[in-house]
Amino acid sequence: MENFVLENPTKIIFGRDTIAGLGKEAAVFGQKVLLVYGQGSIKKNGIYSEVENSLQAAGLTIIQHGGVKSNPTLAFVRKGIELAKLHEIDVVIAVGGGSVIDTAKAISAGAVVEHDVWKFFSGKKGISSPLPIACVLTLAASGSEMNGGMVITNEEKGLKVGTGNKKLCPRFSILDPGATFSVPPDYTAYGAVDAISHTLEFYFTCRGDNTCVQDRFMEGLIINIMEACDKALLDPHNYSARANLMWCATMALNGWTSAGLGWVGFPMHMIEHAMSAKHDVPHGAGLSAVIPAWMRWQAERQPAKIAQFARRVFNIAAADEKGAAMQGIERLTSWFTQVHSPTTYKGLGIPRTTINELAENSQFQAKIWRLREYDQAVVSEILNLIP
Amino acid sequence: MENFVLENPTKIIFGRDTIAGLGKEAAVFGQKVLLVYGQGSIKKNGIYSEVENSLQAAGLTIIQHGGVKSNPTLAFVRKGIELAKLHEIDVVIAVGGGSVIDTAKAISAGAVVEHDVWKFFSGKKGISSPLPIACVLTLAASGSEMNGGMVITNEEKGLKVGTGNKKLCPRFSILDPGATFSVPPDYTAYGAVDAISHTLEFYFTCRGDNTCVQDRFMEGLIINIMEACDKALLDPHNYSARANLMWCATMALNGWTSAGLGWVGFPMHMIEHAMSAKHDVPHGAGLSAVIPAWMRWQAERQPAKIAQFARRVFNIAAADEKGAAMQGIERLTSWFTQVHSPTTYKGLGIPRTTINELAENSQFQAKIWRLREYDQAVVSEILNLIP
Repeated sequence: MENFVLENPTKIIFGRDTIAGLGKEAAVFGQKVLLVYGQGSIKKNGIYSEVENSLQAAGLTIIQHGGVKSNPTLAFVRKGIELAKLHEIDVVIAVGGGSVIDTAKAISAGAVVEHDVWKFFSGKKGISSPLPIACVLTLAASGSEMNGGMVITNEEKGLKVGTGNKKLCPRFSILDPGATFSVPPDYTAYGAVDAISHTLEFYFTCRGDNTCVQDRFMEGLIINIMEACDKALLDPHNYSARANLMWCATMALNGWTSAGLGWVGFPMHMIEHAMSAKHDVPHGAGLSAVIPAWMRWQAERQPAKIAQFARRVFNIAAADEKGAAMQGIERLTSWFTQVHSPTTYKGLGIPRTTINELAENSQFQAKIWRLREYDQAVVSEILNLIP
Repeated sequence: MENFVLENPTKIIFGRDTIAGLGKEAAVFGQKVLLVYGQGSIKKNGIYSEVENSLQAAGLTIIQHGGVKSNPTLAFVRKGIELAKLHEIDVVIAVGGGSVIDTAKAISAGAVVEHDVWKFFSGKKGISSPLPIACVLTLAASGSEMNGGMVITNEEKGLKVGTGNKKLCPRFSILDPGATFSVPPDYTAYGAVDAISHTLEFYFTCRGDNTCVQDRFMEGLIINIMEACDKALLDPHNYSARANLMWCATMALNGWTSAGLGWVGFPMHMIEHAMSAKHDVPHGAGLSAVIPAWMRWQAERQPAKIAQFARRVFNIAAADEKGAAMQGIERLTSWFTQVHSPTTYKGLGIPRTTINELAENSQFQAKIWRLREYDQAVVSEILNLIP
């Protein structure tokens, strides 16, 4: 167990009919709300009305900033910052999934400074006193609803980059599993893959030894994520399945599993960010292709840990480590295929010829995240393992 | 999954050499410290000096309140409240285990009101604005370092009663596993039993259905607690073992495992509190006698869940539920015996003839905790199952 400091101030309000309490919770932080949301699905499924009614009943003024895309852009963040400054916003409320929440976080950080917001992502400026952020979650995936991380795509530079600060933790997040009933099968699966990937990044990259406590926590999460995703795909209105998937995705990246692990890296995310930046593939879809490739590459370096994963998560009986590890990777890949999350270039709809370009693109993120061993040649080697 | 609100503001500072930072962290809350500690073991093992040096280096004034006993008393709490009022204390710092932390919490709640502190425990008054509380943990057991609960013994009335309020969550807790190296074998084991009991109370009493996420989290904790305790007993200076035991004990009762479980009860604690109140047995020692008896009684009512516990925690292969459940209870009881935590009246050093008296005593706590099904006859029945 490595030393750690754990302090997660986000208040989680979880369950049925919890969105109605939004206005009362938000009013604590002021009167003017910047409401950030996506492409309009919340207007179709009724969540927008619930949000608006609750905010208006609490006497709050709403400034609209809808239209966030998957792989959210810097341009949209900059527009939000202009709005926040113009209207002297008190609190930024994200209604959506990770893309919307990350956009809200970037706006809240940028709204209180004079310099361009990209400087936070390029590491040239630190985040100090962002506006208060709150969330109404509509997708089980990123964990952004209970952490200080954010990922934004700079479309001019062709870069997708993540950064974070504990001050970006939402003040509160409303998690109503019913708000995810209408998430289509593909994004339900991509969300599950994203949550699994967060767990695997910690599980395999941590530098601390003796991580048995965190390991069992993470193995349990992965089993539960797969079970819940299977059930949600069979019956999108299965409340328990949606609830378990949502809560597991939050716990996968809220600091609880990683406390005590010491240094951890996000090499799979780094590689996927290059894919999303260059080809605008959904994050979870890119990850289901990268994860098996990275694990096969890693199996040469860390067979014992991958074998542990295989035995505990998939009940693989093989006695030899390498054999168990490879069977575990095969089982995980099969599950990705079963939930229709792509594991090949063909499935992603991008050409194999892109490998060099992706490996080059990944180096910006590799530098910021200090993933020194992942130079262009190594990333190419991993990308070549994707069928 | 049941609806829940989760908000745990305690900052955890975990790891080697973390006590040196105490003064700086505490100074945020004011200048005058009431230092609450136990029977002097911290003066022998050097922790007291570390604490004193850190507080003095930060320029803080220390008012001493040492001498807390296991099963901490109301009289000692009342004296602490007098001191806190007299010296206009800004922050109450507990250096110890659950007994010390609970004493500090009761003092901090009582120091800001005019009425007697027992009214919080008898349910006649609610807790509003306690003094800030901080902890330096020296025993892996109660979880009190990261929750708002407290248990105090009213020695005049012969009652041991627990209550709580989220405002009693420590502002910060320093968890240095090295501070537990000198904990003797018996209290190391009792602490592990206590942490297991918190997990089992949630695991078996929750009224919510579909608790697979929380179940796997708790099963992992129990396995890790037993493994870590075994290693710590073999080698008291095994840092990893002490660290894992400490962190598991904190997670067992900080709200993370219980989020989403709905209503949960503490029937095993209720029965043990009567034992401690009447016979002053260590809390963990009483629990290792009560747990198997309660589980045998419960096996008639809940064989499937106890069988799940047996299969996942002890790899019991038996196909029939009742058989698997009974084997699991047997294995847990054997583990208690192996770590020398008592499972019989003889081991506890109290006479079987006390059963009626204990059952009667338990009813005060049963009423406060709304454990309606546990009337005097039921508690007697359970107590009769202790060998």
